[in-house]
Amino acid sequence: METKRYESGAARLAEIDGEGGKRVIDSLREIAPDLGKYIIEFAFGDIYRREGLSLWERELITIVSLLTAGGCEPQLEVHINGALNVGMPPEKIVEAFLQCVPYTGFPRVLNGIVTAKKVFDSRNLSVKPQKSPEI
Amino acid sequence: METKRYESGAARLAEIDGEGGKRVIDSLREIAPDLGKYIIEFAFGDIYRREGLSLWERELITIVSLLTAGGCEPQLEVHINGALNVGMPPEKIVEAFLQCVPYTGFPRVLNGIVTAKKVFDSRNLSVKPQKSPEI
Amino acid sequence: METKRYESGAARLAEIDGEGGKRVIDSLREIAPDLGKYIIEFAFGDIYRREGLSLWERELITIVSLLTAGGCEPQLEVHINGALNVGMPPEKIVEAFLQCVPYTGFPRVLNGIVTAKKVFDSRNLSVKPQKSPEI
Amino acid sequence: METKRYESGAARLAEIDGEGGKRVIDSLREIAPDLGKYIIEFAFGDIYRREGLSLWERELITIVSLLTAGGCEPQLEVHINGALNVGMPPEKIVEAFLQCVPYTGFPRVLNGIVTAKKVFDSRNLSVKPQKSPEI
Amino acid sequence: METKRYESGAARLAEIDGEGGKRVIDSLREIAPDLGKYIIEFAFGDIYRREGLSLWERELITIVSLLTAGGCEPQLEVHINGALNVGMPPEKIVEAFLQCVPYTGFPRVLNGIVTAKKVFDSRNLSVKPQKSPEI
Amino acid sequence: METKRYESGAARLAEIDGEGGKRVIDSLREIAPDLGKYIIEFAFGDIYRREGLSLWERELITIVSLLTAGGCEPQLEVHINGALNVGMPPEKIVEAFLQCVPYTGFPRVLNGIVTAKKVFDSRNLSVKPQKSPEI
Repeated sequence: METKRYESGAARLAEIDGEGGKRVIDSLREIAPDLGKYIIEFAFGDIYRREGLSLWERELITIVSLLTAGGCEPQLEVHINGALNVGMPPEKIVEAFLQCVPYTGFPRVLNGIVTAKKVFDSRNLSVKPQKSPEI
Repeated sequence: METKRYESGAARLAEIDGEGGKRVIDSLREIAPDLGKYIIEFAFGDIYRREGLSLWERELITIVSLLTAGGCEPQLEVHINGALNVGMPPEKIVEAFLQCVPYTGFPRVLNGIVTAKKVFDSRNLSVKPQKSPEI
Repeated sequence: METKRYESGAARLAEIDGEGGKRVIDSLREIAPDLGKYIIEFAFGDIYRREGLSLWERELITIVSLLTAGGCEPQLEVHINGALNVGMPPEKIVEAFLQCVPYTGFPRVLNGIVTAKKVFDSRNLSVKPQKSPEI
Repeated sequence: METKRYESGAARLAEIDGEGGKRVIDSLREIAPDLGKYIIEFAFGDIYRREGLSLWERELITIVSLLTAGGCEPQLEVHINGALNVGMPPEKIVEAFLQCVPYTGFPRVLNGIVTAKKVFDSRNLSVKPQKSPEI
Repeated sequence: METKRYESGAARLAEIDGEGGKRVIDSLREIAPDLGKYIIEFAFGDIYRREGLSLWERELITIVSLLTAGGCEPQLEVHINGALNVGMPPEKIVEAFLQCVPYTGFPRVLNGIVTAKKVFDSRNLSVKPQKSPEI
Repeated sequence: METKRYESGAARLAEIDGEGGKRVIDSLREIAPDLGKYIIEFAFGDIYRREGLSLWERELITIVSLLTAGGCEPQLEVHINGALNVGMPPEKIVEAFLQCVPYTGFPRVLNGIVTAKKVFDSRNLSVKPQKSPEI
C-alpha cells in the first residue's frame, strides 16, 4: 500500500539523513511536494530499504555517485552526514574519495573533500588521515 | 624507488584485473606506453595499495564512479571483472547499480547492467536477483 | 496498491514505448528484474501518469534530457520511437535537437541526429526539414 | 546581412529573456564582446527564430537541457525567467523538472527546483502544485 | 552577407577536416541540412576563422574538449584527423591527452587514445612516444 | 626516488600556480594530506614535468578540460592564474574559451568567462578583445 511505502521510506530517511533529509523535504512543500514524496517513497522506501547491501554500503555508493556527477554539493553534504549517521568513519569517507582520483580526476575529488571538511567541521570531527604505504 | 612502485602496482593490477588489466596496458605499448606506466604506478601502485578500504570496497567505488560518469563501458567491463576477481558476488554488483538509480537516473544504470550481463555471461555466472522487500 | 501502480505503469509503457519498452524490461528479467519493476512503477506508473503535461511534452523532455546527458543512445532510440508513437512528428524531433545546439554544443546534437535517423529509417519515415528563416 | 541577423536576434533575446538576457550581454562587453554577439546572432538570431516549435517549446527544451547538464544554474535562472516571459505557467516548469527525475536523477532536479523557487519568489509567483494521480 | 559566411566556413572546414568534415555535412543532408549549415557558418565560418589562435591551437582545444565531454568519439575521430591535417604531430596529440589525466581521469583518456590509435593506423602513422623524464 | 619526485613536483607547482597552488595543498593538510601529495607528485611531478608540450600548452589544455567538465570553477580559477603565470596573454585565454562554444555550448563558456573576469580583475589585467573577422 502506498501509505506504508511512504511511512517506511520516511522512517528510513530519518534514520539515515536525519535533520538534513527533513530540511530537503520541507523545502519542497510549497513548490514541488510530490518531489519530496517521490524521494521518500522511491529513493528511501523502495531502494534504501532493499536487502543485499548494508546502509553503510548504500551511503558509500551514493556519495561516490554524487561526487562523480559533479555540481551536486548540496546533496553530497546531506549524504556525507548520512554516511556518518550510519556509522561510516570520516577516515573511510576521505579514503573513498581518494579512490575516485584515477577515475574522475583531481578537481571533482577536491570539491568532494571541501564538502566533507565542511561537514566534519560542523560536527567537530577530526580525521586521522590514513598513511600512504611505504615503498 | 620508482621500480618498486611499478612492481607493486603491477602486482596489484594482476591481482585485481587479471587478464583484462594486462590487455589494457599491452594495448598502450605502441602508442602511449607512459599512460600504461601511470595506470600501474599511480592508480594501482599508489591508490589501490593504500590501507583503509578493502579491495572489495575499492572496486565497488570504482564501478559506481565509472557507471555515473557514463561512456566508460570498456573500463566498467574491466572493473566488473575486477570486482568479481576480488570476491564481490554478482548479486552485490547488481544491487550497487540499483542504488545508483535515484542519483544518476535509469539510463546510466541500464547501461551498467548491460555491461554487467556481458561480463557475467562470459564467466558463466548466474545472478540470484535480490527480492524487493514486501510492504 | 502496488499491483495497481505496476499495472497502470505497464499500460502507460506499452502505450508510449511499445515493443521497445517491452524489450528493455524483458532483457532485465534474468539479471535485475526489480530494475524493470521500478521503471514500470516509478518512471511510468508515477511520473508518466501525472497530469500537467501531455505525453507528447513528456517525451520531448525525455529525449532532450537523454541527448544532453550523452552516452544514452540506446535509451534515446527507445524514446525517439516513443515520441513518434504519441504523435510527435519527426520534423519536431529534429527541430528540438537543433534547439539544443547553443546549450550543449554540436557533438551531442550530431549523436542525437544519428540516432533519430536510425529510428526514422527503421520506420520508413522521411523528414521534411524545416527551412531556416530568410533574413 | 550580418546586421539584420544581429538585430533580429537582439529583438528575440529581448522578447524572451528581457532584462536577464541584456545583463548577460552587458557583462561580456569588457572581456568577450564577441561572445555576446554570437549569443545574439547564433542562439537567438539563427536558432530561436526558426519555425517548427513555439517559443514556449523552445524554452522548455532549453531549461531541460540546462538542468540535465548540471552546473548551469545562472543560465537556468535566466531561462526559467524566459519560460515565464513567453507564457509558460510555473506549474508546467515544475512538472517538466519532475519528468526529468527518472532520466537524470533527483540531485539535478533538486538543484533545478531550488533555482525555480528563487525565480518564482523574485516574481511573487506561487505555484499550485499538480496533484499526483490517485491509484 | 550570409553566402560569404557559408563559403568561407566551408573553405575552412575543407582545410581542417577534409573528407571527414564533408562526410558529416553530407550525412545531414536528408534529415537536418540546417545543422550542417550551422556547423559550416557558425563553427567554421565564425569561430574557426577568428584571429588570436593558430588552427593548430584551435584543434588542440577542440580535441581536449571532446575527450573531456565523453561520448563524442565520432567527433573526436574527425578532429584528430583535423589536428593532423593542420600539422599537429601525432606525438603532440598523445601528449595532450596525457595532460588531461589529472583533470578528467584515466577512463576518458583511454577512450581518447583508442580513437587516436584508430586514426593513426588509418593514416599509417607511427608514434614516437615521449620518454617520461628521469628522476 | 619518491623524495625527488615530490620535490620536483613542488617546484613545478610553485612555478605554475604560485600562491593559489600552495593554498590548495595547505587546505588539505588536516583532512587529506595524501591528496596534496598526489597532486604534487603525480599531476606536477609526473605529468607537468614531461617533455613534448610547453607549460603554456599544458595550461591551455588544463583550462579547456576544466571548463568542459563543468562545476570545477575553483580549479579553473587556480589554472587561469597558472596560465597567466606561464605567460599566456589574457586575450588568448578568452579566445580559447570562445573556441569551446561549438563543442560544449554557451553556458559552460559563460561560466568560464565569469571565472576569467574574476581572475583578470584580481590582477588588474584588462583584455583587448580580439575583433571577429570582417566578412
